[in-house]
Amino acid sequence: MAFKDSLYKSLCRITNGNATKEPEELCCYAYDATGRIFMPDAVVFPCSTFEVSRILELASMEKVPVIPRGSGSGMTGGSLAVQGGIVMAMSRMNHILEIDCDNLIARVEPGVVTGEFHKAVEKKGLFYPPDPASSAFCTLGGNLGECAGGPRAVKYGVTRDYVMGLEAVVPSGAVIHTGVRTAKGVAGYDLTRLIVGSEGTLAVVTQATLKLVPLPESVKTMAVLFPAIDLAASTVCAIIKESVVPRCVEFLDKSSIDCVRGQFGFNVPGDIQAILIIEVDGSQMVAEQDAGKVKSFCLRKGAADVIIASGQKQAAELWSARKSLSTALFRLAPDKINEDIVVPLDRIPEMVKRIQDIQKRTGLSIVSFGHAGDGNIHCNIMYHKKNPQEQMLAESAMDELFSHTLELGGTITGEHGVGITKMKYLPKEVGESEMEIMRGIKKVFDPENILNPGKIFV
Amino acid sequence: MAFKDSLYKSLCRITNGNATKEPEELCCYAYDATGRIFMPDAVVFPCSTFEVSRILELASMEKVPVIPRGSGSGMTGGSLAVQGGIVMAMSRMNHILEIDCDNLIARVEPGVVTGEFHKAVEKKGLFYPPDPASSAFCTLGGNLGECAGGPRAVKYGVTRDYVMGLEAVVPSGAVIHTGVRTAKGVAGYDLTRLIVGSEGTLAVVTQATLKLVPLPESVKTMAVLFPAIDLAASTVCAIIKESVVPRCVEFLDKSSIDCVRGQFGFNVPGDIQAILIIEVDGSQMVAEQDAGKVKSFCLRKGAADVIIASGQKQAAELWSARKSLSTALFRLAPDKINEDIVVPLDRIPEMVKRIQDIQKRTGLSIVSFGHAGDGNIHCNIMYHKKNPQEQMLAESAMDELFSHTLELGGTITGEHGVGITKMKYLPKEVGESEMEIMRGIKKVFDPENILNPGKIFV
Repeated sequence: MAFKDSLYKSLCRITNGNATKEPEELCCYAYDATGRIFMPDAVVFPCSTFEVSRILELASMEKVPVIPRGSGSGMTGGSLAVQGGIVMAMSRMNHILEIDCDNLIARVEPGVVTGEFHKAVEKKGLFYPPDPASSAFCTLGGNLGECAGGPRAVKYGVTRDYVMGLEAVVPSGAVIHTGVRTAKGVAGYDLTRLIVGSEGTLAVVTQATLKLVPLPESVKTMAVLFPAIDLAASTVCAIIKESVVPRCVEFLDKSSIDCVRGQFGFNVPGDIQAILIIEVDGSQMVAEQDAGKVKSFCLRKGAADVIIASGQKQAAELWSARKSLSTALFRLAPDKINEDIVVPLDRIPEMVKRIQDIQKRTGLSIVSFGHAGDGNIHCNIMYHKKNPQEQMLAESAMDELFSHTLELGGTITGEHGVGITKMKYLPKEVGESEMEIMRGIKKVFDPENILNPGKIFV
Repeated sequence: MAFKDSLYKSLCRITNGNATKEPEELCCYAYDATGRIFMPDAVVFPCSTFEVSRILELASMEKVPVIPRGSGSGMTGGSLAVQGGIVMAMSRMNHILEIDCDNLIARVEPGVVTGEFHKAVEKKGLFYPPDPASSAFCTLGGNLGECAGGPRAVKYGVTRDYVMGLEAVVPSGAVIHTGVRTAKGVAGYDLTRLIVGSEGTLAVVTQATLKLVPLPESVKTMAVLFPAIDLAASTVCAIIKESVVPRCVEFLDKSSIDCVRGQFGFNVPGDIQAILIIEVDGSQMVAEQDAGKVKSFCLRKGAADVIIASGQKQAAELWSARKSLSTALFRLAPDKINEDIVVPLDRIPEMVKRIQDIQKRTGLSIVSFGHAGDGNIHCNIMYHKKNPQEQMLAESAMDELFSHTLELGGTITGEHGVGITKMKYLPKEVGESEMEIMRGIKKVFDPENILNPGKIFV
């Protein structure tokens, strides 16, 4: 369907000229971290709830897709214009409206970069735990859409646990307010958590009230080196059972270590098969005590070495190695399928074994790292897309991976969402009755199916 | 509409005779903690998901209301058969199916008594924080329906924060599975948290997977006595800002103190105007340190005395005084309107002042106590229902109370739900667009409006 010129003119009028349909500009909003490309017909940059409302109202009338977009760092295609239409870039709505130190809450617009928000609240002695690896450039709006997690979820939970209320615009253009500014609230159905994680298919969030916690006085970061992968895997579950709840337990397998070997800030001996990056926090005294407990526990479990970062610099180096992994993987092969499966903690050893089996069977490099402390393993199947046989093998590996995950009581997506890449696998996990209810809910919010169509549901 | 005999026979057949329509039995299921009475036509006691499914399927076909019921301790009429029909008592589905110490989760049926569940997990060194005052008799199913909170929400959050997944039956009879057994999961819309807090209007929960945390090694309970109510109110917000996050901060005003004066286990001087019951937890060392910090902080803020419970016995006495308050109030007047308003922490002093003003204006006893640490104040308007003038005054006091709450950025219900008692006030807080969406969602789950009809929505 051709994109009407009159529609474009209306978008320009509503946003005071903050819209574009120049191909060289559109292509900047045509991709995300999946590497797939879908050209939108136009991009619009609203600067207020009122503008978002008028754009959605117009799009509903014209039955044109609207795709809300943060910074396009999503892993499953959530911000791609798969059916063309209008990409709604939230980059101008990037204000931290309030940091309320008395009530430990903040009010933000969706375009605020997550890492900037971290800095702003930490300056005031407060803490916003959700911390996706892309925090340097991803936005809070994107985090809300996907219910982002990150490494600190072990102790602190995910985005959903920090959203108290929302202002959002539904496709009709109506502005809705959900939730509260208080710790408790049960007035009516929980629309807040229904919109969080709905991947921009139900409403466009224009403001969020977020919960903050006091900034822990001290953080201790350590790298635990294991001579065997199964030792690392079984240690993850055991640590938490021992009643120290670390804030992070990150896992890196041998291939991951090889990809970032020079970047840890210390020498990793060649026979090390897995590393856990563990972080504990609390008062100075508690953090030190817990770090000591974790260290001696890991050594008892068979760790070859435990290196406690001596200060912030060494800790930052360690995290930088971990956070650069996702891109460093391309040293192994030009293409990857990146899945964020989750299994119950005690099934991690079995899952790691099964991943190794898939690797053996297919001959592909499969690199596993991620948030082991909550069972969330980022499993990267590396291959050459242009080689049809590798492509086929990679897809069969993914199929198998999901089957094993579900068999072990897990989920096919811990924090990346379904988007377009997992659409066809969703029915493996979610039954038809549940899908029917979800489709029904989608229809309640978006009867014309204009908001981020072609996502989640096959 | 007459209740068909054939329908009753079918209920008996489905449940193997576990149904009744004897008036003397029905009346046991006709009331809840609101004191209102609505006779159901029948009560049925399913013992399995399969039976729940067949009952709902039948009721949908016959268009007869089904009202799920835990132990009837709800404060807003959620389990009352306001339109007659079938009360579905979940008391036979009362099994703890699994306590998984490796993954820190439990699987339970809805009829498990909350306090029994606490004991069972604590025996294994684990902890389930949600702790409504009725925990000795209320059920987990009821807690899920209302999204119950309780005093420990300050540090640990509410029921919603501990539900990972559900098995539930929707009115058509379809059995659905929502959520996960893992810490993270974003496969599709968040039906889990949509059903939690929906007051039994969307689905009947037949099984829940609950998150547990390690049991804190040590708990310190203390009573802080204040010579003026505003000192107590302003201390609540200040404590948390000072970066000790207690697990409970309970507030008792002068009238509350008077109602349970003999029960604290220590003498409360007559000039004490308010008490805070504060609890901190953690390792032995942390709990002791934090208790010391809180004590000296409160004394600096003007507390007259701080009594740290010397052991479990003294702590239990203190809690027993607090937990018996709700019934002890009837010493003041035979009837009460009990509201669980919440305001942002820093507005508590202002709210307390406004409640005193309402008391002065109406001449009624208004007793305030509750979970001040999360802004949740249980405000009890005591009156004589049989005195029409007092009845009118009480209702106008409630109106005013809600208006002040909303004006201060709060919510009309923190944990009791809307039910029937707050139905007419809900539109004060929730806008028409939001209500429209909620009604739409209700219709998706329950097109025939048979599941707990006449609740939440006017």
